[in-house]
Amino acid sequence: MSTLPEDERIDMRWDGWGDPAMAHGLPGGVKLLLTAVLGRSPKPPPAPRLAEVTISTPPLPDADLAALADAVGEAHVDAGHDVRLLHAGGKSTPDLLRRRQAEQVAPGAVVLPGSEDEVAAVLAIAGERGLAVVPFGGGTAVTGGLEPDAGPHRGVVSLDLRRLSGLIAFDDVAQEAAFHAGTTAPAAETALAELGFELGHFPQSFEFATLGGFAAMRSSGQNSAGYGRFDAMVTGLRVVTPTGTLDLGRAPGSAAGPDLVRWFLGSEGTFGVITQVRVRVHPVPEARLFEAWIFSGFVSGADALRRVAQLGTGPTVIRLSDEDETAVSLAQVGNIGKALTKGCSAVVLHEGPAELAKARREATGRVLRGAGGKPAAARLAESWDHGRFRAPYLRDALLAAGVFCETLETATTWSNLHALKAAVTGALAEGLAEERAKNRILCHISHVYPTGASLYFTVIAGLVAEPLEAWRRVKSRVNDAIMAAGGTISHHHGVGADHAPWLEQEIGSAGIRMLRAVQAELDPAGIMNPGALVPRSVR
Amino acid sequence: MSTLPEDERIDMRWDGWGDPAMAHGLPGGVKLLLTAVLGRSPKPPPAPRLAEVTISTPPLPDADLAALADAVGEAHVDAGHDVRLLHAGGKSTPDLLRRRQAEQVAPGAVVLPGSEDEVAAVLAIAGERGLAVVPFGGGTAVTGGLEPDAGPHRGVVSLDLRRLSGLIAFDDVAQEAAFHAGTTAPAAETALAELGFELGHFPQSFEFATLGGFAAMRSSGQNSAGYGRFDAMVTGLRVVTPTGTLDLGRAPGSAAGPDLVRWFLGSEGTFGVITQVRVRVHPVPEARLFEAWIFSGFVSGADALRRVAQLGTGPTVIRLSDEDETAVSLAQVGNIGKALTKGCSAVVLHEGPAELAKARREATGRVLRGAGGKPAAARLAESWDHGRFRAPYLRDALLAAGVFCETLETATTWSNLHALKAAVTGALAEGLAEERAKNRILCHISHVYPTGASLYFTVIAGLVAEPLEAWRRVKSRVNDAIMAAGGTISHHHGVGADHAPWLEQEIGSAGIRMLRAVQAELDPAGIMNPGALVPRSVR
Repeated sequence: MSTLPEDERIDMRWDGWGDPAMAHGLPGGVKLLLTAVLGRSPKPPPAPRLAEVTISTPPLPDADLAALADAVGEAHVDAGHDVRLLHAGGKSTPDLLRRRQAEQVAPGAVVLPGSEDEVAAVLAIAGERGLAVVPFGGGTAVTGGLEPDAGPHRGVVSLDLRRLSGLIAFDDVAQEAAFHAGTTAPAAETALAELGFELGHFPQSFEFATLGGFAAMRSSGQNSAGYGRFDAMVTGLRVVTPTGTLDLGRAPGSAAGPDLVRWFLGSEGTFGVITQVRVRVHPVPEARLFEAWIFSGFVSGADALRRVAQLGTGPTVIRLSDEDETAVSLAQVGNIGKALTKGCSAVVLHEGPAELAKARREATGRVLRGAGGKPAAARLAESWDHGRFRAPYLRDALLAAGVFCETLETATTWSNLHALKAAVTGALAEGLAEERAKNRILCHISHVYPTGASLYFTVIAGLVAEPLEAWRRVKSRVNDAIMAAGGTISHHHGVGADHAPWLEQEIGSAGIRMLRAVQAELDPAGIMNPGALVPRSVR
Repeated sequence: MSTLPEDERIDMRWDGWGDPAMAHGLPGGVKLLLTAVLGRSPKPPPAPRLAEVTISTPPLPDADLAALADAVGEAHVDAGHDVRLLHAGGKSTPDLLRRRQAEQVAPGAVVLPGSEDEVAAVLAIAGERGLAVVPFGGGTAVTGGLEPDAGPHRGVVSLDLRRLSGLIAFDDVAQEAAFHAGTTAPAAETALAELGFELGHFPQSFEFATLGGFAAMRSSGQNSAGYGRFDAMVTGLRVVTPTGTLDLGRAPGSAAGPDLVRWFLGSEGTFGVITQVRVRVHPVPEARLFEAWIFSGFVSGADALRRVAQLGTGPTVIRLSDEDETAVSLAQVGNIGKALTKGCSAVVLHEGPAELAKARREATGRVLRGAGGKPAAARLAESWDHGRFRAPYLRDALLAAGVFCETLETATTWSNLHALKAAVTGALAEGLAEERAKNRILCHISHVYPTGASLYFTVIAGLVAEPLEAWRRVKSRVNDAIMAAGGTISHHHGVGADHAPWLEQEIGSAGIRMLRAVQAELDPAGIMNPGALVPRSVR
């Protein structure tokens, strides 16, 4: 079988984040900070190179590969060592730590369908032959949703959607665009920019993630305050399931029964494969007005953001770092370790036609000032913008230096926000203390809604011995704390395999039964992404 | 068994709309208009009085009534003739025409649970004894969702939720309120007003409908441009199903799998009974700025509304009558028949804190003016506001005068709006011509979204002989036309029994199978509202 076809996209590092050309060492400010916080970290043993890794799970037998090749062409089935490892998981810190092991699991083959019919054919073959199917978009998942978990089946096919890429249809009157699900966010933005439009969805994974992945995971982006989370952008989906294809989203504002589009948003590769995504787009903004604001503390800052969200003054971005995050300038990647200000810093962006953007900025500014905010140098916000996709590269450098770094997130109502923050911080601190790991816990409000907000935590820790097991214990304690404190198990990273054990606490046993019932109907053989989203057994 | 308990709410006329004290004859302007359009309509035969109607379906046997009384108390089970007829259907024009027949169907008993536990107990008894259950909120349904359809069961229980009424919890920081599902919209607004807040959901059914009904039907209101359709207001639901209770909506902005709240929005009394509704609320607006605008035609007017929706300038209300509706001043109920203007009139309202409402009005005004709109006397908009809940009373007067009057609605993208309008208008005109009925067809854009809008049609027709059968033929043709032209089968009236045969065209056979699968899981005996929403057999 051949290697993967060429594609304009850049393949991510197999054992780290992003473009290999962007990899870098630790900046001086970060080194100083780490030494101050964690002391000296011993360098971890060198990671194996890709070719050196032993795969403990066998490749698919030739008969399977031949059957799959009949469906998608021989050039689009690959059971090679390197390609299998490139599809062996996502990009959480545990994923990356596992990439450092000598022996690893991987899917039995990687299949690249070139059409919706080929997707359906692959699902049919997998069902007949007893193979699980794990849909693979940009590979940026961070909650274990890409684990090559065969469930009760013989093996795992990684269904890489990169050949299902590109703009299908554009409607400049309705301001809607339909894309193949494997289109990456940058490819979508490039296609739209040529038409004078943009999608405006910028999660941390922007450079590599696909629109189908955004939909499957209910992604939120940095501009979601203005343009809505990805849920709100999606106006239609096509989904190929093992028992039929759905074409959903007939009209805006329908009341024709339950909104089935919203069933597949968050479906995480279970039930079926999202093959097309129709989204609302908007003209490329004429004006982009960055601002930084400083609040005396997180409570007053959060209150200010709440007022903005509830009045709907229209910021595109509004986010607030807590005191600890502000103190290390985490939001300004180029300046990490340099305390640029005291208190809590907020980044605010208004976009749109010039006059409207200005009016929105003024309306937001009145609220922020009224809530005790003080304007700060706009370069703080501009440097956030400049560094917004660089944090995961920094994590790679930290891991290489033996420093554990991970993020997690949740959401709740405004009235419960500080209690939830305290509960998560407490669980992290106690859990890491039990592991005898010095640490620093940073937090920001990443997204706001009229009734509540999300909390995004960044943890650095001196987790040295068995960091995978140690972090599993800490994370489990954090998830329990989130549930006990009324938070959601995920605001935008999703459920995957990692959060599935907590899903029943979130939606109840009847909710789990609903997921299983639809699974049994659309995917009676249970081949779609076993172990992700739907927990294996109901308590 | 006793009569229904007293309640602060006003019971609607059993054979018409609303408060009997508000009933009126035909205004002079309407009479003149009718004569000009339809000629003289022969008065229909007098309708029977409530006590004179024969109910063709038997009341529930005493053993059933005794079992139900064990669950909810004897005072809250009623199999009396009048009460059964008061729960025999909704308020569509066909419903009201059926109320004029000498023999009618009705549920076998009306049961009024006083707690969520009592709801669960009633469902358990119904399941054991082979009875269907039709949840009943305000009784304002217009698509056949309240038909006393037993399906394969022995009889029908109408589950009237009026005792599950009132505010449960209020959070002024998160701006959220939880209500029992049987709370009427006016009762909810009264409770919120005392706290300085409002929900701001004003559908035509406002005076009688319940929050549970809004959720079950995916209601849209006249202020939905500003505050979102009811879907967008709901942050949580409690639902009692025959096999367990769901408590959904743990946090704003969750990505914990599919949003199950959205499954029960539009569930129409199938799957289970919505018992609590948590909603986003907002402070009572400081300013309410009404405006009327005139456009030279519907195409330029629709284009103006599109620009406003896509820019998000923030109107609370924005609606546009077509030329024919403008010509009869349908939007100004007190002035119907008097042509107040030529072209197309639009009603616009901006609300909020004074400064913000003014800024929003200015931003919208710039767009409307730029699209060719001309400001008109604000009294046009104020008279719309004054008469906004009076149209259904007018329908009663029309029906009493022998004039058929009905409304229907759909939605599509902005790019397909005029084609859909032409298709629906054409199907109505052709269908009514086949019935040899003179008619007048009026239309307005009632709701706008960034990608599209809804079309709301009002039909008056000289349907004299067998109007029920004739309208069934016309409506069937219209529904076929909506599907062929890419519209949705409903923007806000819902599916019910009337639209169920078209649902498979909307969501596909796999979509229907999803509904059936969840139904089989949560309601294995199929007792919940048989015949509504989910079509009986898949083609």
